Amino acid sequence: MKNFDFYNPTRIVFGQGRIKELDRLVPAEAKVLVLYGGGSVLRNGTLPEVRAALGRRAVLEFAGIEPNPTYETLMEAVALARRERVDFLLAVGGGSVIDGTKFVAAAIPFQGDPWQLLLERGRNVGAAVPFGSVLTLPATGSEMNSGAVITRKEFKAKLAFGSPKLFPVFSVLDPVKTFTLPPRQIANGVVDAFVHVMEQYLTYPAGAHVQDRFSEGLLLTLMELGPRALAEPENYEVRASLMWAATLALNGLIGAGAPQDWATHMIGHELTALFGIDHAQTLAVVLPSVLAEQRAAKRAKLLQYGELVLGITTGSPDERVEAAIAGTRAFFEAMGIATRLGAYGVAADSLDTIVGQLKAHGMTALGERQELDLDASRRVLAASF
Amino acid sequence: MKNFDFYNPTRIVFGQGRIKELDRLVPAEAKVLVLYGGGSVLRNGTLPEVRAALGRRAVLEFAGIEPNPTYETLMEAVALARRERVDFLLAVGGGSVIDGTKFVAAAIPFQGDPWQLLLERGRNVGAAVPFGSVLTLPATGSEMNSGAVITRKEFKAKLAFGSPKLFPVFSVLDPVKTFTLPPRQIANGVVDAFVHVMEQYLTYPAGAHVQDRFSEGLLLTLMELGPRALAEPENYEVRASLMWAATLALNGLIGAGAPQDWATHMIGHELTALFGIDHAQTLAVVLPSVLAEQRAAKRAKLLQYGELVLGITTGSPDERVEAAIAGTRAFFEAMGIATRLGAYGVAADSLDTIVGQLKAHGMTALGERQELDLDASRRVLAASF
Repeated sequence: MKNFDFYNPTRIVFGQGRIKELDRLVPAEAKVLVLYGGGSVLRNGTLPEVRAALGRRAVLEFAGIEPNPTYETLMEAVALARRERVDFLLAVGGGSVIDGTKFVAAAIPFQGDPWQLLLERGRNVGAAVPFGSVLTLPATGSEMNSGAVITRKEFKAKLAFGSPKLFPVFSVLDPVKTFTLPPRQIANGVVDAFVHVMEQYLTYPAGAHVQDRFSEGLLLTLMELGPRALAEPENYEVRASLMWAATLALNGLIGAGAPQDWATHMIGHELTALFGIDHAQTLAVVLPSVLAEQRAAKRAKLLQYGELVLGITTGSPDERVEAAIAGTRAFFEAMGIATRLGAYGVAADSLDTIVGQLKAHGMTALGERQELDLDASRRVLAASF
Repeated sequence: MKNFDFYNPTRIVFGQGRIKELDRLVPAEAKVLVLYGGGSVLRNGTLPEVRAALGRRAVLEFAGIEPNPTYETLMEAVALARRERVDFLLAVGGGSVIDGTKFVAAAIPFQGDPWQLLLERGRNVGAAVPFGSVLTLPATGSEMNSGAVITRKEFKAKLAFGSPKLFPVFSVLDPVKTFTLPPRQIANGVVDAFVHVMEQYLTYPAGAHVQDRFSEGLLLTLMELGPRALAEPENYEVRASLMWAATLALNGLIGAGAPQDWATHMIGHELTALFGIDHAQTLAVVLPSVLAEQRAAKRAKLLQYGELVLGITTGSPDERVEAAIAGTRAFFEAMGIATRLGAYGVAADSLDTIVGQLKAHGMTALGERQELDLDASRRVLAASF
């Protein structure tokens, strides 16, 4: 096991009927900016519940944070918060709204051009306005971590940043709020969480026994409950465990002390930035190709994953490796997520453009051993059509 | 899954060579009281390392905290800390030292008789002196939770208390510091962590999928690595995963949203208080008897545990239940921990005395369904000789 620090001070408030507790969670004297996305939190009643719980506090609202939240939109929220001297932020929505709120929290007090926060990956976050979240979509884990991914439309750039100052103070997770999500969003969330685990697990053996068992436990849970979440949208037990699994997939725990990959995410980000493909869809496309490209380097872990998660115990080691990769792709397809770029209308002649963006963003040595150079990423992409 | 809150702000600093980082972890201007037990932290070099890392800070020391730390001893530390106006505590040792430090941290500012902190189970903790820990013995999880168990010799009472104000600010976990532990302490630690998991897992199915998978992962890890930790005392990989498993066994994560038992601990506490039997030894004695007494109520989980942890997949359900209980006892025995009270010199005519203490401490409705009344506890104890 590698040396590690683990620190996660976010308070999780989990379960049905808990949104009303915002009254004790948000400081009584706070001037609150509530940030959200589209109308879904209005339609499903979450926003009215939030407003009611905040009572007589001074509350402003900022709507319109997009999936893959944009710098352009978020800077409008920053301007509003600065102008109104807001001192607490409340994200209501999914990972995009929470990610966007993290950027706003860091940008409000930042001296200088806030784009620098992204270029410096958050190392220059000096202070942040405190914020909480009300999660409505299990997927990204943003509700219990200190990272975010922000897109700048004019540059077609999607960049990650983070800081220990950007943990939510609290996150309210009410599984009932996920009952009305469209199937595509549930499927995306399951795939997103699944790939988060794989990025921290499917590398090479490192003597991290507990992290391995926890990762396998999350993968088993997602494979068992993902299809049931689609088939039984109002099954509280299923939605609750799915929500908690997605949170724990990226709260720092399973990756602490373990080697991590993240090549799939870095390549996927370019696909979203260039073509607008859903984040989780890009992961479903790229991961099987990354596993195949790295089948030698990842061999021991592919065999372990095959046996303990997918139940693959017969066949030669080579056959089991291939079956593990195929089983991963089959799970994504079974969730209704296409795993080929062609299905998203991306033509093979885009290859140079995508690789060019990877180069422009410095993504020239990806993966747990920094072995994935641009040639390897090109092979990964070529195998993804 | 039940509704739950999860909050754990302790910073874990894990790995070899990290004790020197106390210099950044302890406030620079702090007046520090270092608390420890016997001479082991002197002999293995931990205490000199701690002193060196603290540099020019004002440092006082308090030695002699016992296994099963006593109120009597700890009140001496409270008096010293008050007299010297100490403002930071540093526990160096195992769970007993950290538990004792939590009591000292709460008692220093407490107005009134500090014994009330235990009688009220910590609900009356108003403030606490901040404290960190340097862990040398993987076992109790105290390094990443807010609870403690304190013994008052004159009353032969061993009582648990806790408060959200009693999380360590940080805990340094260096697996190398466990290399020189005697086998009995390693075995005790493995059994203690194992039973911590069982108290939060072996109850009844509650739709807590992730918690179940995590618990099974910890149990598998402890069963795999426990014997290896005895056989290969300087295997860093083994000791590291064992240390992290013991921490996660009782940091609030696996029990969040799940029903919990704790009957084994409550009965075991009386055995330690009356007869001075090691804490883990009492757990190894009591747990198999509790599982047998509750075999009907715990049937579904005993079958699940049997299959997924012990690999019991053949035989009738009744046979598998008995095999799961027998396998648990066999694991403790294989770790060198006797599982019968007779082995510790406790005679069968002590039964009334033990049950009398349970009654005196209000332990009249134990277990996940409060079904274990004094008659049931008597049967558990009678089956433990």
